[in-house]
Amino acid sequence: MHHASTRTLLVAPLIAAAAVASAEPLPSWEDGVSKRAIVEFVARISREDSADYVAPRERIAVFDNDGTLWAEQPIYFQFAFALDRVKTLSSVHPEWRSTAPFKDVLSGDTRALVASGQKGLLQVIAASHSGITTEDFDTIVGSWLATAKHPRFERPYTELAYQPMLELLDYLRSQDFKTFIVSGGGVEFMRVFAEQVYGIPPEQVIGSSAVTKFVAVGTNGKPALIKEPQIDFIDDGPGKPSGIDRFIGRRPILAVGNSDGDLQMLQWTAGGAGPRFVALVHHTDTDREYAYDRDSQVGKLDKALDEAQRQRWLIIDMKHDWRRIFADNGE
Amino acid sequence: MHHASTRTLLVAPLIAAAAVASAEPLPSWEDGVSKRAIVEFVARISREDSADYVAPRERIAVFDNDGTLWAEQPIYFQFAFALDRVKTLSSVHPEWRSTAPFKDVLSGDTRALVASGQKGLLQVIAASHSGITTEDFDTIVGSWLATAKHPRFERPYTELAYQPMLELLDYLRSQDFKTFIVSGGGVEFMRVFAEQVYGIPPEQVIGSSAVTKFVAVGTNGKPALIKEPQIDFIDDGPGKPSGIDRFIGRRPILAVGNSDGDLQMLQWTAGGAGPRFVALVHHTDTDREYAYDRDSQVGKLDKALDEAQRQRWLIIDMKHDWRRIFADNGE
Ligand SMILES: [Ca+2]
Ligand SMILES: [Ca+2]
Repeated sequence: MHHASTRTLLVAPLIAAAAVASAEPLPSWEDGVSKRAIVEFVARISREDSADYVAPRERIAVFDNDGTLWAEQPIYFQFAFALDRVKTLSSVHPEWRSTAPFKDVLSGDTRALVASGQKGLLQVIAASHSGITTEDFDTIVGSWLATAKHPRFERPYTELAYQPMLELLDYLRSQDFKTFIVSGGGVEFMRVFAEQVYGIPPEQVIGSSAVTKFVAVGTNGKPALIKEPQIDFIDDGPGKPSGIDRFIGRRPILAVGNSDGDLQMLQWTAGGAGPRFVALVHHTDTDREYAYDRDSQVGKLDKALDEAQRQRWLIIDMKHDWRRIFADNGE
Repeated sequence: MHHASTRTLLVAPLIAAAAVASAEPLPSWEDGVSKRAIVEFVARISREDSADYVAPRERIAVFDNDGTLWAEQPIYFQFAFALDRVKTLSSVHPEWRSTAPFKDVLSGDTRALVASGQKGLLQVIAASHSGITTEDFDTIVGSWLATAKHPRFERPYTELAYQPMLELLDYLRSQDFKTFIVSGGGVEFMRVFAEQVYGIPPEQVIGSSAVTKFVAVGTNGKPALIKEPQIDFIDDGPGKPSGIDRFIGRRPILAVGNSDGDLQMLQWTAGGAGPRFVALVHHTDTDREYAYDRDSQVGKLDKALDEAQRQRWLIIDMKHDWRRIFADNGE
């Protein structure tokens, strides 16, 4: 028995290592600079005899969501949810038919809605995201994701996750990284699909949040958390390093974003001691997805692009670096 | 090779299962109602063919810290740190010698300090916890923990973790639970020792926090997060279920606390569908630790004790349920 167990301990890691080594990682990535940079970074921090070795517990990887892990055009998908939710709720809010910004949502007047500015957008978010329990909100988002379709690609939003990024998440986890989402999007919205779509459990999703109020006896006689309209935390820009500090408590060694809202997260990640991997996803593919950067209303990439060029961070070129964009490209 | 690998795969789990089964769990717990309740709950949710089965990903266990995982008398250990830090900083704050509440800290006038109320205590916390980078704060807390000693037990505070609770954390993790701290204490204070003392990594420590400010170029030319004096989040009372929702995003199936500040966390845990385990640590041992509940200034246990009796939650009696309190009881 002693002999058998010793042998088991010796053989098992070899078999596991062989299995990992035989599968070519990142099959949807072209064999180019970007893929090589990723694979070389992971190899570099994995060599136990190297000065660059990073222990598994410190292999924290953070990813922006909108425009980094899934698409974000023509409007943030969570905002599409908010617009649909306002339409649904309008039957019990007849006053919305004559009140901006709700009347603009109901009449589909996007121009007037945009003109209502951040104040109007926040009103739409608050009205569509509050006044219900956290559990009811999960259910509502789940139903929406199961039925709503993207206007251009005519498929569920969850099918607009980027296949190369899904492979990157899997690859990093296979190399003992712990993967986190750090997004300006609503944390409770993302958690509904993050585990199924990205393999990222709820407790590794960091996002913006509203205040919740605990009631010991809810309408069903059980304790409940009610979503309130007040914003609690905006996980964007300088909020991202603060959110990383508050939720994770370690500095990531790898970060990927796609817009100016990620600049501080990338700086914070790059600024630590030892090897660091920092990258931007650059939207360059009009045919298969979208091409936008400095002048975009959604996912504006300007200052962070300058900084990436200055600091020689990796800039992932979607058109040239990715063999496919979505799992099903209609190919 | 194929034969060998199949054999390895079959044998390895059996060996692991035998190792787990042969070690008697919770050796510092008396064989009584409390230990049996824990072991039976874990067995109940682990049977895959049972209606009470809980998948590993849903095995979320949350623990209060002060008075639940380590001692909290005669004052919260983090407050002892704050008092020592004020004394250290007083050399660069001569004005503190004539300003309450700092002059009371410096002269050791505990009565006057207590009389300054919550406002005074918050001033002491803010002065001792802000104006430095998160990384410098970690270093300062680490140095303090390495040198400061508890006034009664005359040993480092980290040696005042409860041995039976350390065993409970280990036991739950061996049964695929993910263990979290959910404490009113400062998240950055706890993270300095939580991994080493409790085996709980930083990203599974939830606590109260202050605002942090990101600066792209700190004093050393690198990005930094500066701890500000403003409170951001109080993870106590109804803040605990809100914190659980925000940080974990799943409802725990097991929760342990020791004071009224845990009441809502316990209600939230107990209120979910399916099997739930909810417990209070009751301080009943004057000889080996302390005995206190309804009238204590620190760790007051009154309403939560009533509720535990009403709901038949487990009440852990430290004197009778625990064979030892600390790893080294001086026995
Ligand atoms: Ca983005
Ligand atoms: Ca406590």
